[in-house]
Amino acid sequence: MAEEIIVPLDVPGESRSRYIQNYMKITRGSGRLMLFAGDQKVEHLNDDFSGPGIDPGDGDPGHLFRVAGKAKIGVFAAQLGLIARYGMDYPEVPYLVKLNSKTNLIKTSQAEPRSSLWLEVEQVVDLKEKSGLEILGVGYTVYLGSEKEAEMLREAAQLVFKAHSHGLVTVLWMYPRGKAVKDEKDPHLIAGAAGVAAALGSDFAKVNYPQKAGCSSAEVFREAVRAAGRTKVVCAGGKSTDARAFLQRLHDQIHISGAAGNATGRNIHQRSLAEAVRLCNAIYAVTVEDADVEDALKIYLGD
Amino acid sequence: MAEEIIVPLDVPGESRSRYIQNYMKITRGSGRLMLFAGDQKVEHLNDDFSGPGIDPGDGDPGHLFRVAGKAKIGVFAAQLGLIARYGMDYPEVPYLVKLNSKTNLIKTSQAEPRSSLWLEVEQVVDLKEKSGLEILGVGYTVYLGSEKEAEMLREAAQLVFKAHSHGLVTVLWMYPRGKAVKDEKDPHLIAGAAGVAAALGSDFAKVNYPQKAGCSSAEVFREAVRAAGRTKVVCAGGKSTDARAFLQRLHDQIHISGAAGNATGRNIHQRSLAEAVRLCNAIYAVTVEDADVEDALKIYLGD
Amino acid sequence: MAEEIIVPLDVPGESRSRYIQNYMKITRGSGRLMLFAGDQKVEHLNDDFSGPGIDPGDGDPGHLFRVAGKAKIGVFAAQLGLIARYGMDYPEVPYLVKLNSKTNLIKTSQAEPRSSLWLEVEQVVDLKEKSGLEILGVGYTVYLGSEKEAEMLREAAQLVFKAHSHGLVTVLWMYPRGKAVKDEKDPHLIAGAAGVAAALGSDFAKVNYPQKAGCSSAEVFREAVRAAGRTKVVCAGGKSTDARAFLQRLHDQIHISGAAGNATGRNIHQRSLAEAVRLCNAIYAVTVEDADVEDALKIYLGD
Amino acid sequence: MAEEIIVPLDVPGESRSRYIQNYMKITRGSGRLMLFAGDQKVEHLNDDFSGPGIDPGDGDPGHLFRVAGKAKIGVFAAQLGLIARYGMDYPEVPYLVKLNSKTNLIKTSQAEPRSSLWLEVEQVVDLKEKSGLEILGVGYTVYLGSEKEAEMLREAAQLVFKAHSHGLVTVLWMYPRGKAVKDEKDPHLIAGAAGVAAALGSDFAKVNYPQKAGCSSAEVFREAVRAAGRTKVVCAGGKSTDARAFLQRLHDQIHISGAAGNATGRNIHQRSLAEAVRLCNAIYAVTVEDADVEDALKIYLGD
Amino acid sequence: MAEEIIVPLDVPGESRSRYIQNYMKITRGSGRLMLFAGDQKVEHLNDDFSGPGIDPGDGDPGHLFRVAGKAKIGVFAAQLGLIARYGMDYPEVPYLVKLNSKTNLIKTSQAEPRSSLWLEVEQVVDLKEKSGLEILGVGYTVYLGSEKEAEMLREAAQLVFKAHSHGLVTVLWMYPRGKAVKDEKDPHLIAGAAGVAAALGSDFAKVNYPQKAGCSSAEVFREAVRAAGRTKVVCAGGKSTDARAFLQRLHDQIHISGAAGNATGRNIHQRSLAEAVRLCNAIYAVTVEDADVEDALKIYLGD
Repeated sequence: MAEEIIVPLDVPGESRSRYIQNYMKITRGSGRLMLFAGDQKVEHLNDDFSGPGIDPGDGDPGHLFRVAGKAKIGVFAAQLGLIARYGMDYPEVPYLVKLNSKTNLIKTSQAEPRSSLWLEVEQVVDLKEKSGLEILGVGYTVYLGSEKEAEMLREAAQLVFKAHSHGLVTVLWMYPRGKAVKDEKDPHLIAGAAGVAAALGSDFAKVNYPQKAGCSSAEVFREAVRAAGRTKVVCAGGKSTDARAFLQRLHDQIHISGAAGNATGRNIHQRSLAEAVRLCNAIYAVTVEDADVEDALKIYLGD
Repeated sequence: MAEEIIVPLDVPGESRSRYIQNYMKITRGSGRLMLFAGDQKVEHLNDDFSGPGIDPGDGDPGHLFRVAGKAKIGVFAAQLGLIARYGMDYPEVPYLVKLNSKTNLIKTSQAEPRSSLWLEVEQVVDLKEKSGLEILGVGYTVYLGSEKEAEMLREAAQLVFKAHSHGLVTVLWMYPRGKAVKDEKDPHLIAGAAGVAAALGSDFAKVNYPQKAGCSSAEVFREAVRAAGRTKVVCAGGKSTDARAFLQRLHDQIHISGAAGNATGRNIHQRSLAEAVRLCNAIYAVTVEDADVEDALKIYLGD
Repeated sequence: MAEEIIVPLDVPGESRSRYIQNYMKITRGSGRLMLFAGDQKVEHLNDDFSGPGIDPGDGDPGHLFRVAGKAKIGVFAAQLGLIARYGMDYPEVPYLVKLNSKTNLIKTSQAEPRSSLWLEVEQVVDLKEKSGLEILGVGYTVYLGSEKEAEMLREAAQLVFKAHSHGLVTVLWMYPRGKAVKDEKDPHLIAGAAGVAAALGSDFAKVNYPQKAGCSSAEVFREAVRAAGRTKVVCAGGKSTDARAFLQRLHDQIHISGAAGNATGRNIHQRSLAEAVRLCNAIYAVTVEDADVEDALKIYLGD
Repeated sequence: MAEEIIVPLDVPGESRSRYIQNYMKITRGSGRLMLFAGDQKVEHLNDDFSGPGIDPGDGDPGHLFRVAGKAKIGVFAAQLGLIARYGMDYPEVPYLVKLNSKTNLIKTSQAEPRSSLWLEVEQVVDLKEKSGLEILGVGYTVYLGSEKEAEMLREAAQLVFKAHSHGLVTVLWMYPRGKAVKDEKDPHLIAGAAGVAAALGSDFAKVNYPQKAGCSSAEVFREAVRAAGRTKVVCAGGKSTDARAFLQRLHDQIHISGAAGNATGRNIHQRSLAEAVRLCNAIYAVTVEDADVEDALKIYLGD
Repeated sequence: MAEEIIVPLDVPGESRSRYIQNYMKITRGSGRLMLFAGDQKVEHLNDDFSGPGIDPGDGDPGHLFRVAGKAKIGVFAAQLGLIARYGMDYPEVPYLVKLNSKTNLIKTSQAEPRSSLWLEVEQVVDLKEKSGLEILGVGYTVYLGSEKEAEMLREAAQLVFKAHSHGLVTVLWMYPRGKAVKDEKDPHLIAGAAGVAAALGSDFAKVNYPQKAGCSSAEVFREAVRAAGRTKVVCAGGKSTDARAFLQRLHDQIHISGAAGNATGRNIHQRSLAEAVRLCNAIYAVTVEDADVEDALKIYLGD
């Protein structure tokens, strides 16, 4: 597998083996990414962590780390501040530092979305080297179609270039959003967003799962996977709480659409530790271990 | 106690003992913070320092230092300019440099709040080294929900990273504010703000004390304390001038809500020097010395 | 031919031979430029790559590289991210890195156009040196008449100065656009845009082909070619799918208007690989090899 | 006197004696500042220099220097460009470089006031060292209450920190202005502005002289002097052309309000050279030499 | 003459002789400046170079250099890109690099004018040193009264300081413009603009020639010349195509108003090469050689 990795040319010679190593680890040698998303404390404030239907344990950020520490995952994505505060107790967890975040307080009808880089890639590298943490990559969200798009495209391009120069893997969250965007779930638009991630040079693009009346999402999602080319596409499995439906959707994304994995947050961490771990493991089985839905479901059910 | 401190990983090895030392000093070894806030000369202009019900002595900024110099406190927070002008006469006072401030002239209905970094963390470190002042940490206010939120989140993240790299303790004032914010005192929103401070990596988050009709503030405040995880939460005791009620509230915040202290300004410095010192000592007793309300009240009353 | 090249004085002595070499390569020694444009994945999202009348192969970004790798071209223009991801398989392709790009989501009626520099020229040079790729130049789009014009003019001037200092050839896409621009195809306005490229010091200016009622476009285009002086002007051949008409137009641009080549994207890559390669070769024949339209048409038809 | 100067702690050890020297010179050993303001060529364009009631000599900027060269003053404040052009002929004049300025063309009703730093403190230090000019300090205007307040507060804080690091004295012009400001002369607001200067760490704050119906300006001005603490407050004597009234006001500001001097421009330079010099000397006598009004008036009248 | 030059103090010792040399050259030892303006390709797009009444030769930017190369001029002002592209064929021409420019597409009624610095002074110095070109100075336009004034004032102040530090001469185009400006030709306003150039430290200020009903322009222009003090004032001779009237106006500006020369563009380059050269020489004669109008007219007429 390691020989099959296409190392982008903005990874310089001296960082090549580190990039391959990081890429192998983040995909667990499978070429597919199972990303456990833990960046919602900013993006959704406390909405995802406290309320009806949410396990009380999720109210404490330590829950995210406990899940990440016990479950099989590809990588755990969170802001640097959280990782720096809990990482010493979870040194074996593979991390991806999400480098920009915004709250959900301002609606698109009020102002165009803008999420700015909190820290430089070099600062992440510095943390990695000094702490010895397993930081494999960095992430960033681009709101295409926002009037602030230009600033975010530049930050994203810089992030990819610098991350690669240090051998880090990149994931870009590509979300069309703003007054100019009529339908965020349009398959053709999502394909466009995936293509922009390719032009930005990212290793992975996280996009929303398309929805179009009268179409199979798994089928129409193929356009995005093709448009991204060698940049791999991952997406969320949606809000479904029915585990079978959820796992089926992830399976379809990989085996029908050609996606290279998924990024899942709430669906995991809003459950109790034990259940969250089992769901992680089930997702991991589908994504990395090529399990079918039935086998994955058994893992989730603890059979 | 020193061994119990969880040193965040963005504190590099060479700054580790200094961070522990600063953290021990700022919490007086108790893990709790009693912050005496003296940054209102910008935030509230002269409104807090001159007028009915305010001790005439408070009109002179030296009053703040006289209180800080005589009372038991965890740390005295003020802008660098004031500290640089009075610090030579109060070398034993522990300082926290508040690094951004804005006036209260512009209302949210006119423009979205923006408070910018006045000085770099490195300049604070420079002052600390050259002056020998007991500067233990730095502070910054983030207005979540402001259309300028992105700029402040970046400045806050940079401030925490750089402060930690130099072993300084950080306090973030987390205030939801702007047209998008309907209820600044909503417990769930305040919990969200506390969670953002955790994502930013701060040691302490200062938030407003929540208020919700039909709820006990002390009870609903627990959500914020949980959401912040290892980031410690402090808040003000409110505007009450009744000392018993005020101290009871602080006690409740710590012992019911799980808060790690408080940040108090006007309630202290608007009193005469002697009374301000006694109130400080009473607050300190509750916060750091685990006194109950009756004992603290005796301190305040000078019994 | 190499001796005839007028090396601009912002190319320092130590970069002079590299500039001449790059200029010779990009024009294939003809002084004319055949630019294959592959930057539409951002500019037009997936609109140009998937849909009715578009070859299915075009949905994959690899298609662009397969065309560039098999056809005769002067240079292939794309974003750095794409080049870095595919370049190792197409080391013989001559590249031009397009350094700014924006999506087409925001219409001029909503907000003034702004496309920001994604990467610095020095980063391109770094990639070139470390990868050994044949990067001959860099490109940038300026939206004249946008309220953000000032920022783009500065970025363009900096890009030219820095590119020349490293011996790279520059192409500026000069597009009048924004509320202030009534007629983007006005010949006099396009001549003005070409003149601005000259003032910015660019080697090539890509402009739109003018259209004016009652005028021959080829004739009125002369004004732009003159206005640019020693800066060479190229433009697209338009959307015509009739190959003869398309090639005739390119021929007219060169032999009637005095243009120094063309920049063609969709008209090439929306075809099947074989057809795209033949069209490239036909365009190349007109541009670089001084073929007439009939000979070029034969190349396109594979005769 | 030199021993009484409280050197702020952001003046490092190596600049301490220079700061004391500059402070002594700028206050002529009196602790009070007589600032001759010559920065109106930008702030008021040519309105202050040509027109009815203005001495014709004032139309030439050399007039400012001739006055500064012949009169007793504490310091002459002007933009660096003017000082650099005339300073060689007036090497004995003590200068303060005003580092930001704006014209008066845009009214508050059109746009919020913003005056940006023209040059860095380091550039002033560079000029000082290379020219040998007697540059004692730097100045900056902050428009509190402007929507651009945040940018100016940062620039002001940086200016003070850097100026002090080089031993230069600072004067901040603190003007509440903008749509949010209802009454620029409100004593309480002016006290707030003076307090902000203290928080910024400035040595001197220049504020407007308060006016409030039914109050003595000299009395209500005390609030500002107190609020500024160890930061010294100066203000203008107003537009009065009656010399006795003008000098009485300055005397009251010092002896009733507790101000530490004044900043006067138009009232001086709009007079003939001889008269301007005599008025300067009268102001100087009140400010620095502790003269009473009658004695000062004699100086002005040339008795 | 060289000894009479007042070298501003921001010219450091090591650049002093170069400044004097540049100043002598740019004024041809006369203290007066004849500036041939060739920056209109951006400012006016192609409007000045192609159309009725314009010599066809002017459509090619080479025309500007041919004129500058054959005529007597003080300095030829153009953007760096043009100079770098043609300068090798005109090494004897004295150049002034115009460092900012904007197009005329956006009217003041749409948006406030903003022209940004294209290149840094250091880059000009770099070009000068590497190319050996006769670059004597740099220029910049400030739109006073624009809501973007603050940004331009800072850029202008920086440009003057840095240019002087390298011994380059500066010319500032001072144009009141924007919604706040009612009458751009008002003599008092133009005097204010000239005074701002003095405060910015420029060697020369280019202003518009004032117009006021019932007044002699040459008379009222004196106010501006006085207001600028040691900063020398130049202005255009207007659009007159009648050579005698044009030359008379220039003569009046110098001998009645006290101006130190002129800046002329269109009036020169819109003529045939031969006529343009003769007009240049006539202007030069008035400006530098103290010719009277009749003698100058003879030069223009080729007598």
